Amino acid sequence: MTPAELRKQCEKGSFDRPTAGYCDGYVQANLVALPERYAADFEAFCRKNPKPCPLLEVVGPGTSLTSRLAPGADLINTLPRYRIWIDGECRHEVKEISAFYREDLVFFLLGCSFSFEEALMKAGIRLRHVEQKKNVSMYRTRIPLEPSGPFRGEMVVSMRPIHWSRVADACIITGRYPDVHGAPVHVGYPGMIGIRDISKPEYGDAVEILSDEVPVFWACGVTPQNVLLQAKLPFAITHAPGHMFVGDLKNEQFARGCCR
Amino acid sequence: MTPAELRKQCEKGSFDRPTAGYCDGYVQANLVALPERYAADFEAFCRKNPKPCPLLEVVGPGTSLTSRLAPGADLINTLPRYRIWIDGECRHEVKEISAFYREDLVFFLLGCSFSFEEALMKAGIRLRHVEQKKNVSMYRTRIPLEPSGPFRGEMVVSMRPIHWSRVADACIITGRYPDVHGAPVHVGYPGMIGIRDISKPEYGDAVEILSDEVPVFWACGVTPQNVLLQAKLPFAITHAPGHMFVGDLKNEQFARGCCR
Repeated sequence: MTPAELRKQCEKGSFDRPTAGYCDGYVQANLVALPERYAADFEAFCRKNPKPCPLLEVVGPGTSLTSRLAPGADLINTLPRYRIWIDGECRHEVKEISAFYREDLVFFLLGCSFSFEEALMKAGIRLRHVEQKKNVSMYRTRIPLEPSGPFRGEMVVSMRPIHWSRVADACIITGRYPDVHGAPVHVGYPGMIGIRDISKPEYGDAVEILSDEVPVFWACGVTPQNVLLQAKLPFAITHAPGHMFVGDLKNEQFARGCCR
Repeated sequence: MTPAELRKQCEKGSFDRPTAGYCDGYVQANLVALPERYAADFEAFCRKNPKPCPLLEVVGPGTSLTSRLAPGADLINTLPRYRIWIDGECRHEVKEISAFYREDLVFFLLGCSFSFEEALMKAGIRLRHVEQKKNVSMYRTRIPLEPSGPFRGEMVVSMRPIHWSRVADACIITGRYPDVHGAPVHVGYPGMIGIRDISKPEYGDAVEILSDEVPVFWACGVTPQNVLLQAKLPFAITHAPGHMFVGDLKNEQFARGCCR
């Protein structure tokens, strides 16, 4: 299935699953849509916090058509599932957002770690949550974010257990993808970043950490949803976790440096 | 002081100190000199174990003049201090090796982590052993080496405590210097690589690990001395620990990739 075919199936309502594992090699993105009056503050927030909020594209107001990630593709109804936020609460999870569309909406597409996971696996680094078909483990931390207007809070991180001998490789490989969270924000000790119980992630699924593995922590695209919740905006739309926008660009187009 | 001036002072006998902190920015190298009959096995050993034994140059037999690291410079008496090994034992530590020179000696110059420490400090990563003017902490591990002829054993590693937020940076920065040990061989848990007591290094000095720091382990140039000891060769010469060969090339010439 091509990204265009997947987006078409979403529009027809026949695709209603998480997008992980579909359209291998193509970029997937987190979506946040806000009324224009909050857009400048949110864009500044992303620029100040590029590891958890790597801004790939801004669309609108007045249009919902992307020009970079999938030129000409609409962001309305082409994701499998959306969340509608009213007064800082997630009130609806829906497949169809035509009824919620407003001319003043600005759409933010943010990088997603699915892109660097492909590079890790190509290098022979095993990812337990992928092998076990689970969602990645995600945790709230004490790592502070740079505030901007109503947007503030702490970073959410994803955790992947990595074999003791491949930790440096994992840092170097993901460091080549600064637009999809980049290198880890921490390696080794959950307590140092305020995680009390590594066996109880706040989002996603728990995975086992074997005795020859080290927990490695990356900035996570769930961070903006956590921040939206605290900002209590009157209205916002996001993707539903795991139900991403699939673009026409290849993950490899986001690799930096000549060391690939 | 230029590298040529330092080597001249060594020849005159007026420089008799460890070379750390001298000739900033210039490459320093470990030295191993062996009779020709062991040279092919040792060179193969280095090629098979490039992280602990990164081969920068091979000199001889029949000459002791380098052509790469310091074109035309002699390796005889230009290091501040040497060790003479007889039947696998270190019998002498001397400033003058003219009396021990043999026509069949082959000299191996191996990369040294002093080169990447400069890059770490330039990136604002603090190194406690440098700040406290101590030798770096080094440990024997259970990480096996690829054997070659009489040369075999386990890797020796150096350890530097790194702030929790800079571990990935330390991996990425040192990964650009594959000729001077490169990226860490392990991050985080001493026990996983067979180190029982992190407060008791087998070589060098102990340094404190603060509560917000992670121990990071790099392959160490002391590995070949440990291997020589086990190989029990009838004759060998090495530098004395910390008393390195100082070349005319800059550390930056050993950086790889365009990400500097």
